[in-house]
Amino acid sequence: MSDLPRLLDLAAIRALYAGGCSVQDVIAAAARRAEDADPSIFITRSPSAYLMAAVEALLARAPEPGSLPLWGVPFAVKDNIDVAGLPTTCACPAFSHVAEADAAVVQKLIEAGAIVIGKTNLDQFATGLNGTRSPYGIPRSVFDPAFISGGSSSGSAVAVAAGIVCFSLGTDTAGSGRVPAAFNNIVGIKPTSGLLSTRGLVPACESLDCISVFALSTADGVTVRRLAEGYDPADPWSRIAEPRTLPRDGLRLGVLAPADRDFCGRSAHAALYAQAIARTGAEVVEIDYAPFREVAALLYEGAWVAERQAAFEDTGVSIEALDPVVGGIFARAASFSATDAFRGLHRLETLNRRCQAEFDKADVLLLPTAPRTFTVEEMLAEPVLRNSQLGLYTNFCNLLGLSAIAVPAGFAADGLPFGVTLVGPGFADDSLARLADRVHRASDCGCATEQGTIIPPLPPSADPEDRIELVVVGAHLSDMPLNHELVALGGQLAARTRSSPEYRLFALPGTVPPKPGLVFSPGANGPGIEVEVWSMPAAGFGRFVAAIPGPLGVGRIKLANGRSVSGFLCEQWASEGAEECTQYGGWRAYVANRATVLS
Amino acid sequence: MSDLPRLLDLAAIRALYAGGCSVQDVIAAAARRAEDADPSIFITRSPSAYLMAAVEALLARAPEPGSLPLWGVPFAVKDNIDVAGLPTTCACPAFSHVAEADAAVVQKLIEAGAIVIGKTNLDQFATGLNGTRSPYGIPRSVFDPAFISGGSSSGSAVAVAAGIVCFSLGTDTAGSGRVPAAFNNIVGIKPTSGLLSTRGLVPACESLDCISVFALSTADGVTVRRLAEGYDPADPWSRIAEPRTLPRDGLRLGVLAPADRDFCGRSAHAALYAQAIARTGAEVVEIDYAPFREVAALLYEGAWVAERQAAFEDTGVSIEALDPVVGGIFARAASFSATDAFRGLHRLETLNRRCQAEFDKADVLLLPTAPRTFTVEEMLAEPVLRNSQLGLYTNFCNLLGLSAIAVPAGFAADGLPFGVTLVGPGFADDSLARLADRVHRASDCGCATEQGTIIPPLPPSADPEDRIELVVVGAHLSDMPLNHELVALGGQLAARTRSSPEYRLFALPGTVPPKPGLVFSPGANGPGIEVEVWSMPAAGFGRFVAAIPGPLGVGRIKLANGRSVSGFLCEQWASEGAEECTQYGGWRAYVANRATVLS
Repeated sequence: MSDLPRLLDLAAIRALYAGGCSVQDVIAAAARRAEDADPSIFITRSPSAYLMAAVEALLARAPEPGSLPLWGVPFAVKDNIDVAGLPTTCACPAFSHVAEADAAVVQKLIEAGAIVIGKTNLDQFATGLNGTRSPYGIPRSVFDPAFISGGSSSGSAVAVAAGIVCFSLGTDTAGSGRVPAAFNNIVGIKPTSGLLSTRGLVPACESLDCISVFALSTADGVTVRRLAEGYDPADPWSRIAEPRTLPRDGLRLGVLAPADRDFCGRSAHAALYAQAIARTGAEVVEIDYAPFREVAALLYEGAWVAERQAAFEDTGVSIEALDPVVGGIFARAASFSATDAFRGLHRLETLNRRCQAEFDKADVLLLPTAPRTFTVEEMLAEPVLRNSQLGLYTNFCNLLGLSAIAVPAGFAADGLPFGVTLVGPGFADDSLARLADRVHRASDCGCATEQGTIIPPLPPSADPEDRIELVVVGAHLSDMPLNHELVALGGQLAARTRSSPEYRLFALPGTVPPKPGLVFSPGANGPGIEVEVWSMPAAGFGRFVAAIPGPLGVGRIKLANGRSVSGFLCEQWASEGAEECTQYGGWRAYVANRATVLS
Repeated sequence: MSDLPRLLDLAAIRALYAGGCSVQDVIAAAARRAEDADPSIFITRSPSAYLMAAVEALLARAPEPGSLPLWGVPFAVKDNIDVAGLPTTCACPAFSHVAEADAAVVQKLIEAGAIVIGKTNLDQFATGLNGTRSPYGIPRSVFDPAFISGGSSSGSAVAVAAGIVCFSLGTDTAGSGRVPAAFNNIVGIKPTSGLLSTRGLVPACESLDCISVFALSTADGVTVRRLAEGYDPADPWSRIAEPRTLPRDGLRLGVLAPADRDFCGRSAHAALYAQAIARTGAEVVEIDYAPFREVAALLYEGAWVAERQAAFEDTGVSIEALDPVVGGIFARAASFSATDAFRGLHRLETLNRRCQAEFDKADVLLLPTAPRTFTVEEMLAEPVLRNSQLGLYTNFCNLLGLSAIAVPAGFAADGLPFGVTLVGPGFADDSLARLADRVHRASDCGCATEQGTIIPPLPPSADPEDRIELVVVGAHLSDMPLNHELVALGGQLAARTRSSPEYRLFALPGTVPPKPGLVFSPGANGPGIEVEVWSMPAAGFGRFVAAIPGPLGVGRIKLANGRSVSGFLCEQWASEGAEECTQYGGWRAYVANRATVLS
């Protein structure tokens, strides 16, 4: 097999397997691309023995193509994340050692069927946002080799944009999972810290590190992130997710005020940013960016450098073995006292409160991912100043515990891409993805270089804000005495239909107002009972169910079309001896008939 | 009016007003007690002009006795908390200045009708647990003037125990709101950090400080705490409470293993501790105290002294103006680097996870409040070592974000009191109070010196209304395969109990993981089925119910105690032909038996 598609989104890989390609061929072709690509992208390409063993293990476990969600999907792993049997270098030869175990997230993705093509280059010890701080070479933007790739997850971003792998793992402390996405026109998903286990990640700034995902679309990235996430009791930074939702309608989009739209001299980006905002169609709110800017500055200019230094000390590597710029940053840690560190933490707490006030005005922020890019030459000439410019719109996120997704947002006249980032509250990851996907689609700028738009649909939402459907059959039907309870809890009528023929309906004696009981009778072949499907907010649904008096309850009701939906059930003991009204085809008809009889 | 009761609980004050006493008389009598008491208790007694103005303001606002929850109730305020118009000294004359505004909690209590009788002595800048570190004198235990009062909230505890005020505000960073409660046989309520605003408190160790309440009973303390609490957007450390509940029945009580019962040479306390445990009647679980001990040590031996130093620097007071022991502690801060501080934070995160594992075994801890007490002479001879011994069982709480309540637990043969502390998860404050009250009542040792038992009932519980209780019976029980679903949706175990005898349990064939069905059978008289009651947020409950597969559903379950609660039901058709397991008394027993049979 010789020709993989130019870009490897999940749909493309699945199409190859559906068309009869073997996993051996697909993985070999991806490995060949890695061999043929700029050698600075990978620090370690998976040796053929590793790839063969991985393929064999996959086939032994799951012989059928497509039988696992990432079956036979090639991916790349940033070289500060352990892959068992491959060296972990953090782009520092003195640190290099072969990992004994897969990092927790790598293990989950391998279990889901994916195969590691190699370990990617990075700014040494993930310290930088530019991609030039590595003795293994300088990856370049896929759009112009004169320009930086962005970092620190430089190789991981380029490996996806160059079509070597389908997705890749990066890490993101200051913006390393977002800035290189922008410079290579791909999607960078930065989960809320604690959502993905960091076990098996070499810490950069331990309290803030998170593992991120690069992909060609939000859909692919979210699919991978969901497979990789999950609470890990063995990782002290792992958190039990408490999903937050963003409003589906009437969303307020926080944007930079004109005076804050700083693109560090690259004025073409102002128009692209304004266009991205306009294309959302959302209500726009200008926020005060000052507290966010001050939080961002804490990361490299304040005591947090000492947190990096603590992690570096633990590696046992001498500071002389470091890239001089990285070494210079760590050396600054010595000037900070423990008192400074606590002052920094206190300042952060105060700023967090001010940032929260901005989030009270806007549900989500839409920011430039980076103000601009630089040539490699420009970067090397001013490595600290320009790096800090790159992080102007990213550095604050992890200090504030936020979620973020970077998506493409168009090209400037010189052919270089511009990206924007959606920033949401912590654990709004899923809800944020829907919006990021919309912004990406609206940008109409595809996923990477020469290829046209490839944006597969988002996977079915796991959005907890999803409303819950409730089947009602009696006193809660429209215009019946208890319907107001549904309306008061936010319910909306979603459908009028019938149950499957296997249900029987009984008039429950002694209920006020009169209520029926719906009972499933396997094998029954009745007329099907008239029901309404109401759409309820989850909390309203919960409160509603909790208030239902016995012998009624809520279980699953099979509708005439075969769908199974939450709905009213009746404990069978209560229907024994009750009048059956199945033959009326529904409660409304029974009540009307009875009224006629009695009147 | 000349004779106030010896001890002033809220009921006594209310009885005075109900009997026709004037607020002027009651406040004047309390002020006279303050004048006549050991002068080391108060640093500032409220001048009569202050008291007259306070009484006038109260009568202008609320002329009717009893028309506010703390109408005319005298209280004292630790002298690191601002009261407008009175000096705040932190027991450091060089720091003394007149406060311009009431601290947020003082303002709330004054609004509730209470009147400040004076500002109480403390270990300077709240640095200590013993009460000897103040140039304003050394308050003594009300039981023996040779002994320390405990600190740092020394004067506040003694003012309540001596019957000068009805309640007082302390602060608690390491244990300052609990240790002096034990040494004076009163109740010390240490709320979860962030529950009470710290605006207007001079910080000691800013990220950990919380304002605490001393009272004669848990009931009085909880009444005051509820009036004082509430989110304060102007305090960066304030938190929106997310109330946690403890199981009402079947509570697992974590206690020290025998080897960890260290009373620093005071062996009489071992029997009192064992007695306090036995009297709860709860299921007892021995916990591993090692991680808690290590967390406790971080506070004074690790980088957190630098957080104290940061707060002290902000006062502008020179180190020469300090009590020499306090000055010595602050001076140690200089030896810690920012790297040490972050290492400490990382270590804490790891230990927190280990402590959490102990909280997975036990719902709440019952610990000695302090291992022992010392004479003033002993304390002054070894001021650092003995202070650290006093904090052996308290120092860890705020670092782990926990709630705690110290209550009396009996007297040793020499007439000195012993106390125990209930420690619960963060924001379990209300639920914990119920248990603390029970432990206090069981101790049968009253509230203070010669007086008999005065323990009014707890105010009605403020358990959050938006939570819904759910009865689970099978795969969702603790430690069963689907329990994680409840936890992920915010569920908390609220009770372990049984159903009423009218339920039958069936093993549903073909369910994965295996699940039972609970069916109500009127007239049945079985053993009652083992169930757990879980408390869920409404939305989590809703999502949970919506995801339940048929033939299961949620209806009302009658518990053994007659209460009817939402819980799992099974459509009857599905139980027909299924194996009955009612006779095992529950799903857990059935599964265990089946595993034995199959092995």
